Amino acid sequence: MGVPDEKIFPHATAAAAETVAKHQEPQELFCPFVQRSWIALEEKGIPYQYKEVNPYKKEAHFLAINPKGLVPAVEYKGKALYESLILNEFFEEAYPGYKPLLPKNPEDRAIARIWLDHQSKTFIPAFHRLLSAQEPQAQDAARQELYESLRKYMKQVQGPYFFGEEFTLVDVAIAPWTVRDYVLAENRGYKRGDVGEGWKEYAERLASRDTVKRTESLREHLDVIYGRYLRDEAQSEAAKAIRAGRVIP
Amino acid sequence: MGVPDEKIFPHATAAAAETVAKHQEPQELFCPFVQRSWIALEEKGIPYQYKEVNPYKKEAHFLAINPKGLVPAVEYKGKALYESLILNEFFEEAYPGYKPLLPKNPEDRAIARIWLDHQSKTFIPAFHRLLSAQEPQAQDAARQELYESLRKYMKQVQGPYFFGEEFTLVDVAIAPWTVRDYVLAENRGYKRGDVGEGWKEYAERLASRDTVKRTESLREHLDVIYGRYLRDEAQSEAAKAIRAGRVIP
Repeated sequence: MGVPDEKIFPHATAAAAETVAKHQEPQELFCPFVQRSWIALEEKGIPYQYKEVNPYKKEAHFLAINPKGLVPAVEYKGKALYESLILNEFFEEAYPGYKPLLPKNPEDRAIARIWLDHQSKTFIPAFHRLLSAQEPQAQDAARQELYESLRKYMKQVQGPYFFGEEFTLVDVAIAPWTVRDYVLAENRGYKRGDVGEGWKEYAERLASRDTVKRTESLREHLDVIYGRYLRDEAQSEAAKAIRAGRVIP
Repeated sequence: MGVPDEKIFPHATAAAAETVAKHQEPQELFCPFVQRSWIALEEKGIPYQYKEVNPYKKEAHFLAINPKGLVPAVEYKGKALYESLILNEFFEEAYPGYKPLLPKNPEDRAIARIWLDHQSKTFIPAFHRLLSAQEPQAQDAARQELYESLRKYMKQVQGPYFFGEEFTLVDVAIAPWTVRDYVLAENRGYKRGDVGEGWKEYAERLASRDTVKRTESLREHLDVIYGRYLRDEAQSEAAKAIRAGRVIP
């Protein structure tokens, strides 16, 4: 995503070529974090240019402005901005004339951020642990953690969306996992209905929302990516972090 | 911190008493995360009531509105808001008439959040890992991680503060560790000067700032808390998370 007039040289040279060589993994294709920001743009109706970054050979310009090579990234006034939740807040502040995706009052905005933080700190790590857990015992533990995280979250959901009728960034941020949890259902004994607290209905509601469907990748492509996670062979930064017991970058 | 007219019952009963029993650890006393929000309030000049939560016996009312028992917490219109960085953003939005601690333009606000996130994801975990590492090899690895995180951060600091002359939430959020890193210097071979990139000068500048000094705990009290971390005996949620290779809650 970026401004249309920038120049991109076709091949990296010198130090940039070395940096490019370090970023050859296909992990970010069909990335749920990319979809988070994509849904937000679509919901708000902000005009944008989608730039597909070739994950096998990240462009020199992309790495020059965004050294960690993280996606999603936005180029704005020559600066790279990244981190899905930060980008989504940026869209709110940089495009105030578009449909708001955060509540108006400060205490509800804080509550939105508390439950976004809950997603980052408990739900997403448990999802990845369950995905890559090999032993049945580790899978059971991760599944219970995932359920527990979702139960706590669902107790806060007013329905139909987190803040009632209003569709906000809290719903946006968890939606990408509702189009991916079929992988856990098919391979890890996860059942939406076992969570309780209305998760099944809420997840179906998110997954069938127009902006979520419009930004969805083909299931056969997701299967390729998730196959590597299921065999614990993934080399993405997220996969390596989970394996090392570290924070997902 | 809360509104002055709330009722607090002196003793928890029933399920609340059990919840209280689970929150007996003194870890949050002199907590750097509390100091983060305290500095922000002092910088902005917002009138507030400081409520010391007895960490040995958290009050029923406190746990009723804030089940995780996390500090810092703010009670606002009967709701508990928590997480230091979320509270600091809440102060910006709920008290717009007070001194702003975030830049005005959206791209710099995003950059502020990117480097706050960097503190959360790399600096703080490395600080805690170094603190509790027992083997020299693990200490060396954690020290290098800490230095690397600070070097990346310092490359973004315009000086004298993160955004130049303006003192912002980015500086606020890292300041509590500049009054605590003496523990690493005395016990873990850490030297501010070894980081380079101006960290020593920046850390001294933050630690000597009036609002930081006004919210500083006695070093002899910090020593008691950090002694438990140095012996890897701490039972705080942060300590347990680091030990289990999990995200600090």
